[in-house]
Amino acid sequence: MGRITRRMRVTRLRFHGEDVETDTRADVLAVEEPLEIRVGGRSLTTTMRTPGHDIELVHGFLFAEGIIRSREDIREVRYCPGATGPGGENTYNVLDVTLAEHVPPPGREHERHVTTTSACGVCGSTSIEQVMGRRVHPVQPIRLSAQTLGRLPEALRESQDVFSRTGGVHAVGLFTPEGETIEVREDVGRHNACDKVIGARVIDGAMPVRESVLVLSGRASFELLHKAVMAGIPAVVAVSAPSTLAVDIAREAGIILAGFTRPGRMNVYAGEAWLDT
Amino acid sequence: MGRITRRMRVTRLRFHGEDVETDTRADVLAVEEPLEIRVGGRSLTTTMRTPGHDIELVHGFLFAEGIIRSREDIREVRYCPGATGPGGENTYNVLDVTLAEHVPPPGREHERHVTTTSACGVCGSTSIEQVMGRRVHPVQPIRLSAQTLGRLPEALRESQDVFSRTGGVHAVGLFTPEGETIEVREDVGRHNACDKVIGARVIDGAMPVRESVLVLSGRASFELLHKAVMAGIPAVVAVSAPSTLAVDIAREAGIILAGFTRPGRMNVYAGEAWLDT
Repeated sequence: MGRITRRMRVTRLRFHGEDVETDTRADVLAVEEPLEIRVGGRSLTTTMRTPGHDIELVHGFLFAEGIIRSREDIREVRYCPGATGPGGENTYNVLDVTLAEHVPPPGREHERHVTTTSACGVCGSTSIEQVMGRRVHPVQPIRLSAQTLGRLPEALRESQDVFSRTGGVHAVGLFTPEGETIEVREDVGRHNACDKVIGARVIDGAMPVRESVLVLSGRASFELLHKAVMAGIPAVVAVSAPSTLAVDIAREAGIILAGFTRPGRMNVYAGEAWLDT
Repeated sequence: MGRITRRMRVTRLRFHGEDVETDTRADVLAVEEPLEIRVGGRSLTTTMRTPGHDIELVHGFLFAEGIIRSREDIREVRYCPGATGPGGENTYNVLDVTLAEHVPPPGREHERHVTTTSACGVCGSTSIEQVMGRRVHPVQPIRLSAQTLGRLPEALRESQDVFSRTGGVHAVGLFTPEGETIEVREDVGRHNACDKVIGARVIDGAMPVRESVLVLSGRASFELLHKAVMAGIPAVVAVSAPSTLAVDIAREAGIILAGFTRPGRMNVYAGEAWLDT
């Protein structure tokens, strides 16, 4: 546990014209390890993540997939006791979830986004419909201050401890409409960081998180907007570009979506009517 | 087809102290759309990708997963004719692969990295073993010039047309040891860009690509190193940080791995003995 970073040997090269200066030493890297999520003993998915906050990750993942709706839908989550590494130690890389009795077990459609439609069609709008059909907490738009949103990436950056040491992880943060930090998580996979942030809210019984803003250290993809929609989060602020499908689902769901949010500037792709300037 | 970018409405905000300047216009975004890959009519996976070079993507993906070893292992790839959108037009988002008769169909272990071991253990080293066990082209290390490697991210950047217009896509390039471009692909998903680059080599019957360098516009994760190992590529150069597991598998496979490759500098995490300076 707590294996968030690891020291590894690195040779640093500096080029000065034709000359190369080299220097070998230890450097701090972000740890990436598989986490297998089992439900009722059956393997559902394996994600490559940075260890830590795994229980939150599992809650957030199952919530985003529509498998659970609240913490009451989970009876138990535990590290599989037989999951041992070469030295016989527990790897802490397999989590077994026991759902509450009233919760139907995940079906095949939850395995790697396999579509269950017998029709041959799959397109952006079917992906959006699938998420919209699964959500139980429609977004209730709220008025937000553009200036406050514009400052959130900087606030996120100040909480990025692992990034400061490794330069190798994404961060996702949840903030109040006034710009106060609710939760920040870092991970080699941005979807994992997002699941950890939202999973923490599920564990706290704080779903949906209506009065909040989700802040992404990188780009805004469909996958991350999907998770925001499921959680009923009314605004997403990204440091980098959104994709077309991220914008489409934000517009459909009534979410404010900002991208390229850098000091002094911000691009708003959806929900601009809800912004106070 | 050809829907690589799309124009969408954006409101640009510029903050000047308490004042906000706004300006609404059309901006170019990178397209993200689902691609469902079916093998023998059975859904194997759905990936969110930027359309274009889909046939390459499928070849690269199936090759990395160890399902095919050469182009001869595929009899046919075609867009599913019944895959139609709301207007009855083909979505070009479903590709159906027919494997050659001698190729065993993919098993359950190919669905979302589900592990097939009955044991409860999963850890970094089992992930590495799994890839090493599947590969058919062990890396044959070659001597490479550190200076040449150090210049490759800049060469990649010059080919990033979609990034220049959208700021919203990753790029992966394959270069010769002398620094000449073999192939560059851009995609909202970096694993897709990698599959497209390697898939192009599979289609050309050029596997393994022993004399080459894979260049990544972002971070080096396990998933990307996995694809390099399968293709027998002896060097990977990333613009940003590698993860611990990326370094571990590079060392195990005998691949040169460089990170933080910026003008004038480069960090080498594996295979430094093969670098000429």
